[in-house]
Amino acid sequence: MPSILSVTTHAKSATEITAQIQKEVARCGNSSGVAHIFIQHTSASLTIQENADPDVVSDLISWLDRAAPENGPYRHTAEGPDDMPAHIKSMITSTSLTVPFANGRLLIGTWQGIFVLEHRNASHTRQIVVTLLDEA
Amino acid sequence: MPSILSVTTHAKSATEITAQIQKEVARCGNSSGVAHIFIQHTSASLTIQENADPDVVSDLISWLDRAAPENGPYRHTAEGPDDMPAHIKSMITSTSLTVPFANGRLLIGTWQGIFVLEHRNASHTRQIVVTLLDEA
Amino acid sequence: MPSILSVTTHAKSATEITAQIQKEVARCGNSSGVAHIFIQHTSASLTIQENADPDVVSDLISWLDRAAPENGPYRHTAEGPDDMPAHIKSMITSTSLTVPFANGRLLIGTWQGIFVLEHRNASHTRQIVVTLLDEA
Repeated sequence: MPSILSVTTHAKSATEITAQIQKEVARCGNSSGVAHIFIQHTSASLTIQENADPDVVSDLISWLDRAAPENGPYRHTAEGPDDMPAHIKSMITSTSLTVPFANGRLLIGTWQGIFVLEHRNASHTRQIVVTLLDEA
Repeated sequence: MPSILSVTTHAKSATEITAQIQKEVARCGNSSGVAHIFIQHTSASLTIQENADPDVVSDLISWLDRAAPENGPYRHTAEGPDDMPAHIKSMITSTSLTVPFANGRLLIGTWQGIFVLEHRNASHTRQIVVTLLDEA
Repeated sequence: MPSILSVTTHAKSATEITAQIQKEVARCGNSSGVAHIFIQHTSASLTIQENADPDVVSDLISWLDRAAPENGPYRHTAEGPDDMPAHIKSMITSTSLTVPFANGRLLIGTWQGIFVLEHRNASHTRQIVVTLLDEA
């Protein structure tokens, strides 16, 4: 069965989950394949980005706020001014990620980290489904 | 063999295909894995978004039109003013989606729906390839 | 084991790798499944786009430059003015792609090509991990 991770996020920020995904992959022993990571929400999303300088994810969050500002000409406003921008930010980033692994290790680059992006203006608990797929 | 779905779209709009994908997954019986959905076009694309309030996808379509307007400084204009914006919108959304399933059910969130985004200014028939992958 | 492709890119441009991915898939004989393509970098990315008119990818690169300009209000500037825009462009395009195949052939549309997008202002050698996944 797929695993479910619960991740607590903070308002408009990025939370790194690379270690949790690495732990799932380590259970697979020596096999090779692809880890599939899916977020069950449409106002938070996923991205793989540089995890060396924390200014990078901070600049990404700021750019998303400029690209989809809270005061845009939206019809969907009933859930608050941050909700429709959150859906736009989710659409242009990722609802799922797929990352290769071999011998129990994620095959990511030196500077790559896996992040949950919270697009709402408050902390949330986000559900993430992790499924491991075997290489052919 | 993968399945091919033909989806008829309308000009600059979103067509929900969650039920068709759920039907493909139900054929797999009790196994777990990931459904892979691929659109064979570059002027239409895919997204997973809220399917409760129809204003959400309408606002997403409007935002894409503002982000990639028809009157931009494009060189590729031979296929009409809506074609190059359609390629940009396709690039910043998704050509493929991957969605986990278990026991014949998609493991999507309560408000998540799977949509085909038509970026051209006319109705089209779009080909979508669905492949089911088993969990390791 | 997954394959690693080294791809030499040019400053702010798109390099097509469809033929290399097709070659990997051809090794699988008559099976069906999904090819998984992952780039181990966060300042270059992947996209599937029209490969008929070269103006299309040129317009995509120009649009990305307008969406994430070098003179933006970024904190992360230590790696040069093109680095933070490169991370933004990577986030809104794709770090991984998944493409269906059957009988040794990619199931892509007539006009679809697989491209590496180089977002930095210089040529780089980019590492790409290719993993083949069997259909259920």
